[in-house]
Amino acid sequence: MEARIAIAPSTPGAADGEPDRLRLGIEEAVSRGGGANVPIADADGLVWLVPGEPELLGATLDAHPRIGWVQFPWAGVEKFTSSGVLDRPVVFSCAKGSFAGQVAEHALMLMLACLRDLSRQARTPGWSRTEPRSLHGRRVTILGGGGIATELVRLLRPFGCRIRVVRRHPEKVGVSGGTPGTPGTPETSETLPSSALPAVLPETDLLVLALALTPETRHIVGAAQLALLPPHAAVVNVARGAHIDTGALVEALRAGTISAAGLDVTDPEPLPDGHPLWADPRVLVTSHSADSAEYVARMLCERVERNVGNLRAGRPLEGVIDPATGY
Amino acid sequence: MEARIAIAPSTPGAADGEPDRLRLGIEEAVSRGGGANVPIADADGLVWLVPGEPELLGATLDAHPRIGWVQFPWAGVEKFTSSGVLDRPVVFSCAKGSFAGQVAEHALMLMLACLRDLSRQARTPGWSRTEPRSLHGRRVTILGGGGIATELVRLLRPFGCRIRVVRRHPEKVGVSGGTPGTPGTPETSETLPSSALPAVLPETDLLVLALALTPETRHIVGAAQLALLPPHAAVVNVARGAHIDTGALVEALRAGTISAAGLDVTDPEPLPDGHPLWADPRVLVTSHSADSAEYVARMLCERVERNVGNLRAGRPLEGVIDPATGY
Repeated sequence: MEARIAIAPSTPGAADGEPDRLRLGIEEAVSRGGGANVPIADADGLVWLVPGEPELLGATLDAHPRIGWVQFPWAGVEKFTSSGVLDRPVVFSCAKGSFAGQVAEHALMLMLACLRDLSRQARTPGWSRTEPRSLHGRRVTILGGGGIATELVRLLRPFGCRIRVVRRHPEKVGVSGGTPGTPGTPETSETLPSSALPAVLPETDLLVLALALTPETRHIVGAAQLALLPPHAAVVNVARGAHIDTGALVEALRAGTISAAGLDVTDPEPLPDGHPLWADPRVLVTSHSADSAEYVARMLCERVERNVGNLRAGRPLEGVIDPATGY
Repeated sequence: MEARIAIAPSTPGAADGEPDRLRLGIEEAVSRGGGANVPIADADGLVWLVPGEPELLGATLDAHPRIGWVQFPWAGVEKFTSSGVLDRPVVFSCAKGSFAGQVAEHALMLMLACLRDLSRQARTPGWSRTEPRSLHGRRVTILGGGGIATELVRLLRPFGCRIRVVRRHPEKVGVSGGTPGTPGTPETSETLPSSALPAVLPETDLLVLALALTPETRHIVGAAQLALLPPHAAVVNVARGAHIDTGALVEALRAGTISAAGLDVTDPEPLPDGHPLWADPRVLVTSHSADSAEYVARMLCERVERNVGNLRAGRPLEGVIDPATGY
């Protein structure tokens, strides 16, 4: 089948650096995939170039009912889910999975930074020896069982951690058991349903959030969950800020319920100047910097190319969103 | 043979926290190894409890010529090498290799921190998105082929880095080639002689120092070596501060010859307040915190126990220092 693709909105806004270069890259990807770049009035498919503006997307789809496929540029699409735009009879795909390697790497860095007191050391302009904690053999609980979790399990393999993946659908994730007899084992990757979370938290040294944001997972880590963690535990979030009840996190740090936090995402985001999380030397905030714009653009172009090819061949698309779950 | 062991000096100084607990732990290790804890006048072997005071050690050995073995508590013994105390006809062993796991983990964290602009982010109390660089596939050059290098190669395995180990003796180090077909490969661990350093530096994204300090390796990274690195390269030092010409490092950062530095050790050490390296947001200094005092004590006790057992059985000791090379 034909694949006539448009890119919208026409003025994508200033959010992501070099929109014209990105647009050009996507046009080339459409061509490489065997599709045609066309004006929106003639399009069967749409690449949506910004990570928001759901009302504008809804109006665009209403005005152009022939569009049957929309590709989003990011992995998380919670802004679109809540707006109802995904209820239309259109196939929506996103970039989920594309950025997993970079985000998992960032999560590993935040884990090491929490254990080794890096935030305090980086902001102290003088010699101050600290007592580091090793990641080796730690009990790591990962919320979410998608691409980031799979990648993080792989990166943690040499550390001999006891890894538990907690997810909605408790299928097996990533590697398990390691290579018997190699250094760093025993490593365990155990996958558990969400209902196991209260039982797992007291046995967690590092809690990593790597799941999609949905109404069910909003504030999945609140005061009750933080209270179940041991006081030496650290919390790392590379998913979405609203997974954590920020007020409860600030209070848990104040009370010493947990020892540290590494946050690539916050709620609100951007985290406002003067927020108590900025001042706490046990907290490291990295301003949603887990993946690079250059890398994101490259991954998006590769996915567009493959999905245009899939569309033409009648194959399933990559990264299709389930409107019922919102990811 | 018998193993009558003394612990000295009797007042070990305040350098390492809880000397009495450490002393007690070593006495227990001597007993577990089958040795006897004795006064120094009756000793065949000596555990030297402080990481310095070579003149005092020399005087102690001169006063007690029956002592044939000295165990040092740390991996690096350059203070003793330069004092000439190692020229005595005594077997000296150190803790080399014991701390490799912790130090390699710290090196990995500093590498990720350099690539992901962590120092600047940690000291900026406001939202400031950065463009991270991934470790995946980077060209890593490790100076030194001992325990830290072997461990670091293992930790880097999932990242698919191109790894070169540069060392005096270019035997094979650590794992090589990875497991064919697993994600993250091709990974290469190539071992090269020190003479290859000028050829390797221009092809290096991350330069990691993990070697012993000897007269030959002092200032192994100076202005000439820094100039050979590409401008995006980062330098990580988890060995000894004097491996790097500090003035040349400051100048290279000022001139943009390199992009970042992660330093667990400095020269001078402690790095004095007001030193330009403290103020540079591209530099992370972690105040010789790669390994924890608790971990160091545990590793030392385990080594003492095994070496006392080795001594009694007439087996080779672990961690014996070669006075000719100084490590």
